[in-house]
Amino acid sequence: MEALVLEQKGVLALREIDLPLELGPNDVKIRIHTVGVCGSDVHYYTHGAIGPFVLREPMVLGHEAAGTVVEVGTNVHNLAVGDRVCMEPGIPDLSSRASKLGIYNVDPSVRFWATPPIHGVLTPYVVHPAAFTYKLPDNVTFAEGAMVEPFAIGMQAAARAHIAPGDVAAVIGCGPIGIMVALAALAGGCSRVYVSDFSAEKLAIAGKYQGIIPVNIGERSLADVISAETEGWGADVVFEASGSPKAYKGLFDLVRPGGTLVMVGLPVEPVTFDVSGAIAKEVRIETVFRYANIFDRALQLIASGKVDLNPLITETFNFRDSIAAFERAASARPTDVKLQILMEGGGN
Amino acid sequence: MEALVLEQKGVLALREIDLPLELGPNDVKIRIHTVGVCGSDVHYYTHGAIGPFVLREPMVLGHEAAGTVVEVGTNVHNLAVGDRVCMEPGIPDLSSRASKLGIYNVDPSVRFWATPPIHGVLTPYVVHPAAFTYKLPDNVTFAEGAMVEPFAIGMQAAARAHIAPGDVAAVIGCGPIGIMVALAALAGGCSRVYVSDFSAEKLAIAGKYQGIIPVNIGERSLADVISAETEGWGADVVFEASGSPKAYKGLFDLVRPGGTLVMVGLPVEPVTFDVSGAIAKEVRIETVFRYANIFDRALQLIASGKVDLNPLITETFNFRDSIAAFERAASARPTDVKLQILMEGGGN
Amino acid sequence: MEALVLEQKGVLALREIDLPLELGPNDVKIRIHTVGVCGSDVHYYTHGAIGPFVLREPMVLGHEAAGTVVEVGTNVHNLAVGDRVCMEPGIPDLSSRASKLGIYNVDPSVRFWATPPIHGVLTPYVVHPAAFTYKLPDNVTFAEGAMVEPFAIGMQAAARAHIAPGDVAAVIGCGPIGIMVALAALAGGCSRVYVSDFSAEKLAIAGKYQGIIPVNIGERSLADVISAETEGWGADVVFEASGSPKAYKGLFDLVRPGGTLVMVGLPVEPVTFDVSGAIAKEVRIETVFRYANIFDRALQLIASGKVDLNPLITETFNFRDSIAAFERAASARPTDVKLQILMEGGGN
Amino acid sequence: MEALVLEQKGVLALREIDLPLELGPNDVKIRIHTVGVCGSDVHYYTHGAIGPFVLREPMVLGHEAAGTVVEVGTNVHNLAVGDRVCMEPGIPDLSSRASKLGIYNVDPSVRFWATPPIHGVLTPYVVHPAAFTYKLPDNVTFAEGAMVEPFAIGMQAAARAHIAPGDVAAVIGCGPIGIMVALAALAGGCSRVYVSDFSAEKLAIAGKYQGIIPVNIGERSLADVISAETEGWGADVVFEASGSPKAYKGLFDLVRPGGTLVMVGLPVEPVTFDVSGAIAKEVRIETVFRYANIFDRALQLIASGKVDLNPLITETFNFRDSIAAFERAASARPTDVKLQILMEGGGN
Repeated sequence: MEALVLEQKGVLALREIDLPLELGPNDVKIRIHTVGVCGSDVHYYTHGAIGPFVLREPMVLGHEAAGTVVEVGTNVHNLAVGDRVCMEPGIPDLSSRASKLGIYNVDPSVRFWATPPIHGVLTPYVVHPAAFTYKLPDNVTFAEGAMVEPFAIGMQAAARAHIAPGDVAAVIGCGPIGIMVALAALAGGCSRVYVSDFSAEKLAIAGKYQGIIPVNIGERSLADVISAETEGWGADVVFEASGSPKAYKGLFDLVRPGGTLVMVGLPVEPVTFDVSGAIAKEVRIETVFRYANIFDRALQLIASGKVDLNPLITETFNFRDSIAAFERAASARPTDVKLQILMEGGGN
Repeated sequence: MEALVLEQKGVLALREIDLPLELGPNDVKIRIHTVGVCGSDVHYYTHGAIGPFVLREPMVLGHEAAGTVVEVGTNVHNLAVGDRVCMEPGIPDLSSRASKLGIYNVDPSVRFWATPPIHGVLTPYVVHPAAFTYKLPDNVTFAEGAMVEPFAIGMQAAARAHIAPGDVAAVIGCGPIGIMVALAALAGGCSRVYVSDFSAEKLAIAGKYQGIIPVNIGERSLADVISAETEGWGADVVFEASGSPKAYKGLFDLVRPGGTLVMVGLPVEPVTFDVSGAIAKEVRIETVFRYANIFDRALQLIASGKVDLNPLITETFNFRDSIAAFERAASARPTDVKLQILMEGGGN
Repeated sequence: MEALVLEQKGVLALREIDLPLELGPNDVKIRIHTVGVCGSDVHYYTHGAIGPFVLREPMVLGHEAAGTVVEVGTNVHNLAVGDRVCMEPGIPDLSSRASKLGIYNVDPSVRFWATPPIHGVLTPYVVHPAAFTYKLPDNVTFAEGAMVEPFAIGMQAAARAHIAPGDVAAVIGCGPIGIMVALAALAGGCSRVYVSDFSAEKLAIAGKYQGIIPVNIGERSLADVISAETEGWGADVVFEASGSPKAYKGLFDLVRPGGTLVMVGLPVEPVTFDVSGAIAKEVRIETVFRYANIFDRALQLIASGKVDLNPLITETFNFRDSIAAFERAASARPTDVKLQILMEGGGN
Repeated sequence: MEALVLEQKGVLALREIDLPLELGPNDVKIRIHTVGVCGSDVHYYTHGAIGPFVLREPMVLGHEAAGTVVEVGTNVHNLAVGDRVCMEPGIPDLSSRASKLGIYNVDPSVRFWATPPIHGVLTPYVVHPAAFTYKLPDNVTFAEGAMVEPFAIGMQAAARAHIAPGDVAAVIGCGPIGIMVALAALAGGCSRVYVSDFSAEKLAIAGKYQGIIPVNIGERSLADVISAETEGWGADVVFEASGSPKAYKGLFDLVRPGGTLVMVGLPVEPVTFDVSGAIAKEVRIETVFRYANIFDRALQLIASGKVDLNPLITETFNFRDSIAAFERAASARPTDVKLQILMEGGGN
C-alpha cells in the first residue's frame, strides 16, 4: 500500500510499503478517511526520536484517524461494515496486570501507532481491534472523528483532575494540547478556565470559546490574575500543559489550599520542583499518560454539542500533499492548531 | 418586624413579629430583597410538618433568599456594607465532628431557616453568619441569587455523583428539584441528561435546555429509552429526584454496570428496594442531604453563563401578596417552577 | 475425567464426565489440589438454582480451588510448570466495555465456574487463563490458596468501602462471608469491627480474632452497642453480610453521618429500605459483586501474616467423600465455617 | 507559669513566663502530663527558624502533649474535668473557607503551638478548644497520648494515600516520621512496607515490627529490592519521608504503573523532579501537611492494639531536665526515636 513513510530523521516519502492487513477474529478493517497531524509525528520527523523511542527503520506516520469499516472479524458484534469510526491508536495486552485494572494506557507492552517500531495509519487501510474502534454518532464528521485522539488527552486530564462542578481552572500553555485540556475542563464541569501563553495569536483562538479567559503572560502574571479573580484563594485545578520547565517556578502559587495540579506537558528534562510549596497547600498532583476509556465519552460530548472542535481544524491537505502538510506543521505557525490530511476516496 | 408567619397548619398571616437582630462579631445584617417559595415552605403550610419537624408555634417562612449587606460584625472581613449577597440557610455548629470533616450539612445540631422551630426570612432584615453569606458576582441578579439555594441541591447531587466528563445521566422526576439536578449534571460534566416525568408541561420546560432530553413515561418507559440510546449499556448516573416509591421499581435497569444511583427525592415512606439488582451491577449509591460547600461554586456557574436559571422563575409577587403566592404554590400548577417574593425597598 | 457432578437438584454423583482440556496459547493447565465447598455450590445442590441461574443439565461443582501448574500455553510467561497457584473462577471477555474499565466482574458475558451452564473444578484437572491464575507465595498452603476465593469477596467489600485508617466498622451476619468481610476490613485499615449474629457458636469463632467484637443480637441490639461505643456517632462503615431483609430495619441508625453502607449479602427478595434514613445522614452505599483485581492483594495479606484463614477451615474431606462433604455442608452446622475437599495426588 | 522558653536561637531557659489562661466558653483547661520532643522544636532551637517561620521573640516550645482536663468552658459537653486527653496543636479559624471544606490543616490562618509567634505547651497548664482536645481511651497511657501528634502525620500520609487493602508500600527514610508513616500504612491496610535508610540502627528499630522490611540502601538499592519483590511491577504506594533531594532521583522506578507517591518529607530546597517519569506511569502524587480529622482515628488504632508506639519512646526526662532533653535530641543519636518530657505532678 501507499503510505507516508518517515524514512529517517528529516526524510519523508510517499511510497509503497508492505503492511500487514490480516484480519483476526476480534478485528475490523478500516478504510482511512482523515488523519490529523500530531506534534509527536512532527517531532519524529524533525528529531527522529521522542525520549526512549528512537526511529531505527522506516515507519509510517499518523495516529489521529477516522474512517469507515470495510470488513469485520468473526467475533465482532458491535461494529458492521459501513460504520463510520475513529480509532484509539494504542493496543494494549488486554490480559496484562494494568489492563485488568482498567489502566491499559500504562500497560508497558502497549503498541502505539507511529511510535517506533509500530507503523501509523497515513495509508489507505488499517486493521485494528474492534475493542479500540469507536462508532461515530451520525452528527459527528470524519474530521471531528480524527480530532478525538488529541481531544482525548484533554479529556484524560479532565478526568484525572476529578473536577467538582463549578471548579475554577487554569491551563498553562495554549498549544493544541492546552486548548484541548481547557475545552475538556469546561465540558467536564469547570465554570471558567484561564489559559496562559506568550502568544497572542494562540490565545486569540482559545479566547473565542465561551468560558476560556486568555491570559497573556507577556503582559501580566497568571498568578496575579488568578489571585485577583479568586479573592486570593487560587484555582481549584491547574493543568500544566506547556511542558516548559519554567512553568514550574511559582507553580503552587496558582493552586488553592487543597487544590489539584494536573501535569500533562512533557518536559524534555527534569524540572526544578517546589515540593515544600506543594506540601504547604497539601496539593494533590495527577499525571496524564495518553488516555484510557475516554474515546466513547469524548464522542458523547462532541455529539451533544457541548464541545465544538471544528474551529481548531486550521487546514486540510490531500494525502498526495501530506509531505507539504508536515513541512507546514514543522514550521509551527502560531495560528495553526490542527492540520489534517484527507485520504483519497473516503467520502463523507 | 413584619413577616410572613405560618401561625399553624393552613393559617398564614402577614404581621408584626418579634425577631432577634443582634449582630455578633462574625455576623452580617442583610436587607432581604428576594425570597423564593420552596416546596418545603408550602408543605409546612399545607401539612404543618415534614417528617420529625413539626410546627408547634408560629414560624416565619422562607429560606431561599438574596439581599444586601447593611451592617457587618467586627470580625467580618470578606463582606462589606452594600454587598449584594445570597445566604446558605443552615447554620451548623462549626466545631462539631461533622463540620470539622467538611460535611456540616449533616451536623445533627444544624439550625435551618423555616424548619421548626427556626424562623425563616420572609421579613425585611435578617442577621446571618458571614461564613454562610455569599457575595453575588456583578452579573448575577437578586432573583438569580434567590435561586442559588434550590440549585444548590442539584449541585450537591451532581457533586456527590462524581460525574466523569461525558457521562450520560438520567433524572427521574421533572419537578423543580429534578430540573435543578439536570442542569447541575449538565454543567457538572454530563454530555446529556434524560429527564422523565408524566407531565408534558413540566417536560416542555426542561426540554428547552440544550442537553436535556425529556422522556414522557406515560408514553414510553425510561428504561427502554436509556437502553436504546446507550446500546443496552445503561446510564452512567441515575438521579432519583421524584421521591416516588414507584420510581424504585426496575430502577437498576437504568444504570450501567458499575454505574451510580444518586437518591435525592425523599419518599414519605420506606420503599421496596431491589438490593440484588443493585449488587448484580455493583452500583454505587449516593444520597444527598441539602448541601455543603456548594453556594460559591453554584454562583460561579451562574456567573459564567453555563447555567441559566431565569427561565425557571415563573412569577414574582410583592411581599404584601405573599399569602397569595403561597396559595398559588399550594395549587401546584405544572407550569410553575419557581415563584418568588419581592420584599419592599430592595432595589436591584 | 472423574468429577463431582450435580445431576439435578438434590442428586450428586462422583462419576466420569467429558470435560474440555484444550490448552490455548494464553492458558495454563492445573492439577487441582484443594477445593472449598461454597454456600452457592450447596444452594445449587439443595435448590437447583440461584436467581436467574438454573441447573438444566449435569454440572460439575466447585469454584474455590488451588493446585499446581502442569502445562503452560505458548504465550504464558508469568507462570511455569510446577507453580503452586489459585484461580479466579470467573472468566470475562477481556475486550468488553466493563473489562476495559477494570470492572470485569460486572462484564455481562463473564463465565463463572459452577454457575450453570459452566462446569466447576471438583475434578483432577482444569485449563484456565493464565491471567486469572495466581501464584501462591511460598508460605501460603494449598488449603489457604483455596480460601482466597471466599476471602476475595470480603476483600472486595473492604476495597469498595474505601476504608480510612482507623475506621470503626460493623458487620451484620457472622456466616462465612460475614467473617471474611470482618477480617478484610480489619486488614484493610479498620481499628475494630463489631460482628452481629444470633448464633453464639458462630460469634465464638469470629470473636477469637483480635479486633473482632462479637455482638449477640439475641441479647442486645447492634445499634445500642454501636451507639454506646462511639459516643452516639455511629460506625464509619457498616457491612450488610446477612442477606436478611430484617437487617434493613433501622439499618441507618448504625451508620455515622456521612458514613458508608456496603451491601454484600444477597436478599432473596426486594427489601423494605429507608431511603429517608439514608439521606438524612447522606450515607454512601456501595455494593459488592464477586471481585476484580483482588486475588493478588488477598494473597499478599495472607502471606504477610496479617490475615490467618486457617482457623476457618473446619474440616477436610477426601475427593472420594465429596458427596458426604456436601451433605455435611447442607446440614449447616453453626460451627462449620469452611469445608474443603482434597483431590487425590495433590502433594503439598 | 514556669515554661521551657526558647529565648533565641541556641538559648533555652526554664523560667517563669506570662501566658494567657483565659477560658472561653468552648475551651478546656488542661494540666499537661507528658510532652514529646519533636524535630521541629529542636530545629527552632538549633536554627531559630523553619522556612518562613522565624523566632523573633522568646517562645515556649513543645506541641506533642497529653494531660488532664481541669476546667471546662460553659459550652463544652463532650469533655469533663478529670478526662485524660491529648491535643491537636493547630487551631484553625473554623469559619474559614478551608475549614468549611474539612481541610482545616491548610487554613492559612491556623495558629500552631510552638510555631513563631505562638507559644507551645512545655508548661504546666494550657487552655485549648474542646473541639481539638481528644479523650484518651482507658487503655491508652499519657505517654502514648503524647505520641498521637507525630503518629498523626503518618496517619495523614496513610489517609491521603487512599490505600487499597493489601497494597505493598515503600517508605523512604527511617527517621521518626518514616517509622510513623510505615506503622500507619500497615495499620491502614498495607500488606507489607519496605523502609529504606542508610542507618542500620534506625532500620533495626523499625524492623522489629511485623510487616516492616528494612532496606539498607548503603548495601542495595530500594528500586532493586522493590522490583525483585514485586515481579518488576513496583510498589503500589511510595512515601517519601526523608526530605532529601537525593530521594527524588529515580523515584518513579519504585512506583507501579498507576501507583501513588506521597510526599511527606520537607526538602529544604526545591528538588530535581522527573515529571516525565511520573507521567509515563501516570502516577498520582499526594502531599501531606500536618493532619486534619486524624487524632480520633489514630487513638482508635492505638487503643485497639493494632499500633504499638511504646517501642518508639526511647527515654523520658523530667521537666526540670528538659534542657538536657533538648541537648540530647539535638545530638541526633540514631537510636533515639522519641524523647519525652514528664511535667511534674501529672499522675498517670
